[in-house]
Amino acid sequence: MSLDQTWFSESYAPSGSAFSLKITDKIHSEKSEFQTIDIYQTETFGKLMVIDDCTMVSTRDNFFYHEMMTHPLLFSHKNPENILIIGGGDCGTLQQTLKHPTTQSVTQIDIDERVTELAKIHFPELCTENNDPRATILFEDGINWVRKAEKNSLDIIIVDSTEPEGPGEVLFTDEFYSYCFNALKDDGILAIQSESPFYHVDLLKTLCNRFENVGFNATRLHHYPQPIYPSGWWSTLLASKNGEFHFRKQDAKQKPFETNYYNANIHESSKALPEYLLKALPQLKQK
Amino acid sequence: MSLDQTWFSESYAPSGSAFSLKITDKIHSEKSEFQTIDIYQTETFGKLMVIDDCTMVSTRDNFFYHEMMTHPLLFSHKNPENILIIGGGDCGTLQQTLKHPTTQSVTQIDIDERVTELAKIHFPELCTENNDPRATILFEDGINWVRKAEKNSLDIIIVDSTEPEGPGEVLFTDEFYSYCFNALKDDGILAIQSESPFYHVDLLKTLCNRFENVGFNATRLHHYPQPIYPSGWWSTLLASKNGEFHFRKQDAKQKPFETNYYNANIHESSKALPEYLLKALPQLKQK
Repeated sequence: MSLDQTWFSESYAPSGSAFSLKITDKIHSEKSEFQTIDIYQTETFGKLMVIDDCTMVSTRDNFFYHEMMTHPLLFSHKNPENILIIGGGDCGTLQQTLKHPTTQSVTQIDIDERVTELAKIHFPELCTENNDPRATILFEDGINWVRKAEKNSLDIIIVDSTEPEGPGEVLFTDEFYSYCFNALKDDGILAIQSESPFYHVDLLKTLCNRFENVGFNATRLHHYPQPIYPSGWWSTLLASKNGEFHFRKQDAKQKPFETNYYNANIHESSKALPEYLLKALPQLKQK
Repeated sequence: MSLDQTWFSESYAPSGSAFSLKITDKIHSEKSEFQTIDIYQTETFGKLMVIDDCTMVSTRDNFFYHEMMTHPLLFSHKNPENILIIGGGDCGTLQQTLKHPTTQSVTQIDIDERVTELAKIHFPELCTENNDPRATILFEDGINWVRKAEKNSLDIIIVDSTEPEGPGEVLFTDEFYSYCFNALKDDGILAIQSESPFYHVDLLKTLCNRFENVGFNATRLHHYPQPIYPSGWWSTLLASKNGEFHFRKQDAKQKPFETNYYNANIHESSKALPEYLLKALPQLKQK
């Protein structure tokens, strides 16, 4: 069968594959200063935000990504108090970090205010914590902000960006990671959305090497399902400045908030590496 | 964008989603006695076999499925010697079971000989062990075979079937599972491909209840990526007659064969259940 205009399709050219959702309406479309943003009503996935033709977030399945971009990371740090999010304009990552009682401040910096304005309208369930007094939401160049940030001031940096092409490209460079390294405290952890463990093994290699180049002492990959993203399987790459990932398992088991995907067992299981990744990414080999 | 005839698309109606692969050629198409079988050359996934418009197997990514349908199962049994495969006509599951030194006999019964004939031509890498003296390949009604099988004669039964609609439907019934229960030894294990842990939670519930109804004492779910199947995330459901799953971890760590996905860590991690499945399937709750 071929898929007509009643479907939104994202084709991922290098893999020769595409993922599609049946749509009932195109609710909104605009060219912001930085990118094209479309909002669709889908038949079964709720609303769908698409940026420059790439699926970003759907009502139904964003919990995989937002939970796995945050909880494995925050529960791998002894006391994550001060957090920076680069990107993350839909506010779903911000919302999850604010669930942690350790969190004292979260600064979210997305370059495009329109993403957040549209999220407030179409994904209000992700924006419930935007007015938390611990949250600061800025719209500016995140790289510049990190470059100027006070040294050794942050516990956690989360790069919740678009793909390595387009506006997000600068978030995949040595230069940016060296700014992050400097802004983090000695036991700080950087986490970045690192694409598909099936399609993007070369990118994962490059990222591991870049993290090593700028001084991080250990990297760790967490992987998880994400149906609307290419291959249906996604990952978050963590880099620890002092080389430690201290899993607070007891805290994760007794987490004082609800999740839909994450739990302490999922935390541990999401870092088990398939044979082909052990061979391709020896840097990630588990102790 | 819409996807034209240069793509093969499988739309999974209840989920309102579709997965597509770019194709360069339709190599073969036939209506066998039981189903329509198409073979495509894809741009990046090698060859693709499609049965009744559902993707079955691709050169590039079948390793996830075939390894996860067999190794977690065989390494969860103390001494899996005598194995029955119902379905599995592409011979990839047979090939993996024969890698285990414990295996003394494997009988594969697919109703449609054409699937195996086409696999020999288009997926010869899956058929390398078809002439192993421990293997018996039959083409007949698997249900009838199991019904007549000697009681307490089998260690393992693997149901490597198509979807619960069409010719595979009878492989999702109480009647069939009771035949399996009778044919298994007291410490025998049944395993069945159990669809997507995201889209098919209701089916998983039904299967757990059916296994319990016919006398199995414990069930366990292993989940894993499978990019070409709906949601990109798939599962194998195990049912143990005496309620025991004895993971031979040391044997898995020292497995005398190569794998691409499976290893001892993946074995353990693939049974960690997300929060929403713990709630939906309390039968699977881990001890």
